[in-house]
Amino acid sequence: MPVKRWHAELAWLGGDTVAEQVLLEVEADRFLRVTPGSQPPADAVRLPGLTIPGLVNAHSHAFHRALRGHTHYGAGDFWAWRRQMYAVADQLRPDSYLALARAVYAEMALAGITTVGEFHYLHHAPGGVGYDDANAMGVALVAAAAEAGIRISLLDTCYLQADVEGSALSGPQLRFGDGDVAGWAARVAGLPAAARGIAPMTARVGAAIHSVRAVPADGLAEVSAVATGLAGPLHLHLSEQPAENAACLAATGRTPAALCAEHGVLGGRTTAVHATHLSAADVCLLGSSATAVCLCPTTERDLADGIGPSAALRAAGSALCLGSDSHAAIDLLEEARAVELDERLASLRRGTHPASVLLTAATAGGADALGWPEAGRLVPGALADFATIRMDSVRTAGADPGTAMAMATFAAGAADVTNVVVGGLTIVSDGESRRLHQVGRALAEAIRPLWS
Amino acid sequence: MPVKRWHAELAWLGGDTVAEQVLLEVEADRFLRVTPGSQPPADAVRLPGLTIPGLVNAHSHAFHRALRGHTHYGAGDFWAWRRQMYAVADQLRPDSYLALARAVYAEMALAGITTVGEFHYLHHAPGGVGYDDANAMGVALVAAAAEAGIRISLLDTCYLQADVEGSALSGPQLRFGDGDVAGWAARVAGLPAAARGIAPMTARVGAAIHSVRAVPADGLAEVSAVATGLAGPLHLHLSEQPAENAACLAATGRTPAALCAEHGVLGGRTTAVHATHLSAADVCLLGSSATAVCLCPTTERDLADGIGPSAALRAAGSALCLGSDSHAAIDLLEEARAVELDERLASLRRGTHPASVLLTAATAGGADALGWPEAGRLVPGALADFATIRMDSVRTAGADPGTAMAMATFAAGAADVTNVVVGGLTIVSDGESRRLHQVGRALAEAIRPLWS
Repeated sequence: MPVKRWHAELAWLGGDTVAEQVLLEVEADRFLRVTPGSQPPADAVRLPGLTIPGLVNAHSHAFHRALRGHTHYGAGDFWAWRRQMYAVADQLRPDSYLALARAVYAEMALAGITTVGEFHYLHHAPGGVGYDDANAMGVALVAAAAEAGIRISLLDTCYLQADVEGSALSGPQLRFGDGDVAGWAARVAGLPAAARGIAPMTARVGAAIHSVRAVPADGLAEVSAVATGLAGPLHLHLSEQPAENAACLAATGRTPAALCAEHGVLGGRTTAVHATHLSAADVCLLGSSATAVCLCPTTERDLADGIGPSAALRAAGSALCLGSDSHAAIDLLEEARAVELDERLASLRRGTHPASVLLTAATAGGADALGWPEAGRLVPGALADFATIRMDSVRTAGADPGTAMAMATFAAGAADVTNVVVGGLTIVSDGESRRLHQVGRALAEAIRPLWS
Repeated sequence: MPVKRWHAELAWLGGDTVAEQVLLEVEADRFLRVTPGSQPPADAVRLPGLTIPGLVNAHSHAFHRALRGHTHYGAGDFWAWRRQMYAVADQLRPDSYLALARAVYAEMALAGITTVGEFHYLHHAPGGVGYDDANAMGVALVAAAAEAGIRISLLDTCYLQADVEGSALSGPQLRFGDGDVAGWAARVAGLPAAARGIAPMTARVGAAIHSVRAVPADGLAEVSAVATGLAGPLHLHLSEQPAENAACLAATGRTPAALCAEHGVLGGRTTAVHATHLSAADVCLLGSSATAVCLCPTTERDLADGIGPSAALRAAGSALCLGSDSHAAIDLLEEARAVELDERLASLRRGTHPASVLLTAATAGGADALGWPEAGRLVPGALADFATIRMDSVRTAGADPGTAMAMATFAAGAADVTNVVVGGLTIVSDGESRRLHQVGRALAEAIRPLWS
C-alpha cells in the first residue's frame, strides 16, 4: 500500500509545545509514522504554518446555519429565538436538508473541522408523518457529511414531549417525535446499517436525549441503554437555560443533572451539552461520573445563555469538548478561545485554561465524546485527520515556534485554515474545498428558499 | 474636477435598513452625491456586498500588536500582562516603530478601518532621554498611517507619574514622561505642524490623559485646556480595573469619574476609554456630561477586565465608540458584536444593542470621538471613506437586503472586507492592500526583532 507524506513546518503533537519539521506518513487512512525534526522528502506535501489534529465539532444542528444573521432584530430571549428556529425547521425536506447540510459541512471543512457530531431530531415530515424511509432525514445528514468529506457521528435524538410536565408535542415539534422511547429505538435500529451503506469509514451512530424537557424521566434509562447497544456515545442538552432548571426542579424535585444521575444517564460515554447553569452539586455529579461537557460558547453568547463553570467542571473531572451548535459562527478556534476569554470576563483572571487544554478540547476531547477515540491525535495508528493553520496572515503574523500554539488558539480563525486532510484524503487545500465548489454560493442557494 | 463613482449592491446609509443599488459619487475627497436605486454607470467601480462608512478604530496602541499570541502562558492578571507590554515598549525606536505601526495600520486597512485614534505615550528614548526631534515617535506614527493610507488622530498622552499617589516613573515608564504638564504641553505644541507636514489631509492631533494614575489631579484641567487649544479631542483610560478605582478612592476620596468631573475633564469632546468598573453615579456623570465612551471588548476579554455597563451608559447619554486597543484582534466587526454579545452574557437577554447602534459606534461614533465629525457617514459632503463587506463568503452567505446589516455585524469579520476607500482613494481592493505588499510578512519582520 502506498505511503503518503506531508511535511509540517510546525505541528502540535500534544502538550504545551509544538514540534518543528514534522514528517507525517500515512498508510490507508491512518498515521504510520509521525517524525519531528525531519527533512522534507521530495514527494511530501509541504504544510507551512501550524498543523494540528483535525478539529472536532462535537455539537451541531446543521439547519441552524440558515438562522445566522436572521435573528437579531428586536429584543428577546432564548425562547423567542426558538420560535424562529422552529419556523426554519418546518421548511426542510430530505432533499433540501441534504443540500443545506452539505454546504454547512463544507463550511466546517474549510474551518479545519474533520468530524462533526450532529444532534439530529428533525426526523419526520411536517406534522410528524414518517417518510417512506423512516430515517430519510438522518440519511441525508450522513450523505451530506460524506459529500463534504468529513466524518460524522449522527446522534439520533429522542424528543417525545414539549415540556418536563409531559405536554404533547405540537406544531413544528411534531416532526421531532417518535411516540415513545420504543418507537424511537425501533427507528434508530435501522440507522447503523444505513450509515454504513453510505459512508462505511466515516460515519458512526450514537444517541441523544434532547433534554430533560423532551424525554420523560422514566424513559431516560431506556434511551441510555439504546446508546449502549449501538456502542455509541450518548449526548444531551443540560441546563442551558435557568427556566429549564426551574421547570425540572418544580416537576421532579431534582436539577437536570441530579435527575440524569438518578436514571443512570451520566458516565464516561455521556456528554452534557452546555452545562451552563449548574449547582456545585451538579458539577460534582458530572465530574465524578466522568461525564464529558460540550461547551458552545459562541452560541451561549448569541443566545444569552450565560457563562458556564468551565473551570469547576475541569477540576471536578469532566473532559471538555466544543461545539458550534447554532452556527452563529463556524470557527472552532473561536469556540476554543471563547471558553478562556469568557472565563476571564467572569473571574477577572487570565490563564485558567491554557492553549493546550483548549486545543485538546477542540480535537481529542471532541473525538472521544463522539466515539472516535482513534481520532484527534497526531500519533502513529490514529486516523490521519489534520488541519493546517497559516502563520503568515495578518491575524497570525508574529508567531514563532514558541508561540504558534497560542497564536492559533487566541488569534487565528477559520479564514486562516489552508489545508485539511481526513483519513489521508485532502478535502481542503489553499483554503478551498476540494469537494464542493463555491461553498458560499451553495450556502446561499440552500438558505434562500427557507426564508422566501 | 473629475468625479469618481462607485456602485454598491447594498449600502448602509444609517438607521435600521440598508439601501440597494447605491451610486456613490466622489469629488476630491468628499461625497458629492449618494443615490440609492441607481443603475450602475459604465465607469463605476462595482462593489458587491454591503458597503458601510469606513470603520473607525477609536483606541489603538500600535505597538501592542507585537504582543499578540505572546502573553497567554501561565496565569496572571492585567498587571502581569503589563510587565510583558513594557518589555516590548522598551525595544522600540522611531525607525522600528514606523515599520511596526505601518504594518499594523495596513492590517487595520485590510479590516475596513479608515481612521485610527492612536493613544500615544511612547514619547522618548529609553531612560526618558528626548530624541533630537522631541516628537520623533509621534511623527513616526503619523507617517505610518499615511503610508498605510488611513487617517489618524494622534492622541498625545500625558503620562507623568507611576501611580495615583504620585510615585516617580521608573524603568520602562521613563520613556513616557515629560516631567510635568508644562513640559508635556511644550512638546505637544510642535505636533500639529509636524503632522500637517506629513499628512495635511489625513492627520489630526488631540490629547490624552493616560489615566488618573498617571496625571496628578491638579494637572488634569491643564491637560484638558491643551486639548481645547488644539481644537482636538481629549481621551483617557477610565476605570479599566478595580485596582485603579480602589487606589483612586484611597488617595482622593473620589472615583476616577468623579475626580475627572471635579476637574472639568468630562464633556462632549472627551472620550472615556473602557469605563468598565463604574458606579451608578459614575454612569450619570459620564452620560449627563455627554462624555463619549470607547469600549474595547476584545481587549477587555483578553485582559480579564470584565464587562462594562454599556446599556446603562447609552441610556444615560454617552455616545459609544469602539477600539481594538491591545490588538489581541484587529476586527471592528468583532468589537461591535462583542458589545452586544458580552451584554447578553451579563444580562441573559438578547437585543440590548441592535445592529444599527453597534455599526454607528463602529463608524460615526468613532469619527466624532476622534475629531472627524465629517467622517463615518455615507452622506453628501462627508469624507469619502467607506468599506465593503462581501456577502458571499462562507461566513456571510445567506444574507438578503433585510438581513445584510445584521449579518455584517454579527457574522462577518475582517477577512470579509474586500474594498476600502479613504478620501476617494482606494487603499484595499480584492482584499489586498494597495499600499503595502505582503502585510503579514511586514508584520512578522517588524515583530521578530522585538522578541529576539
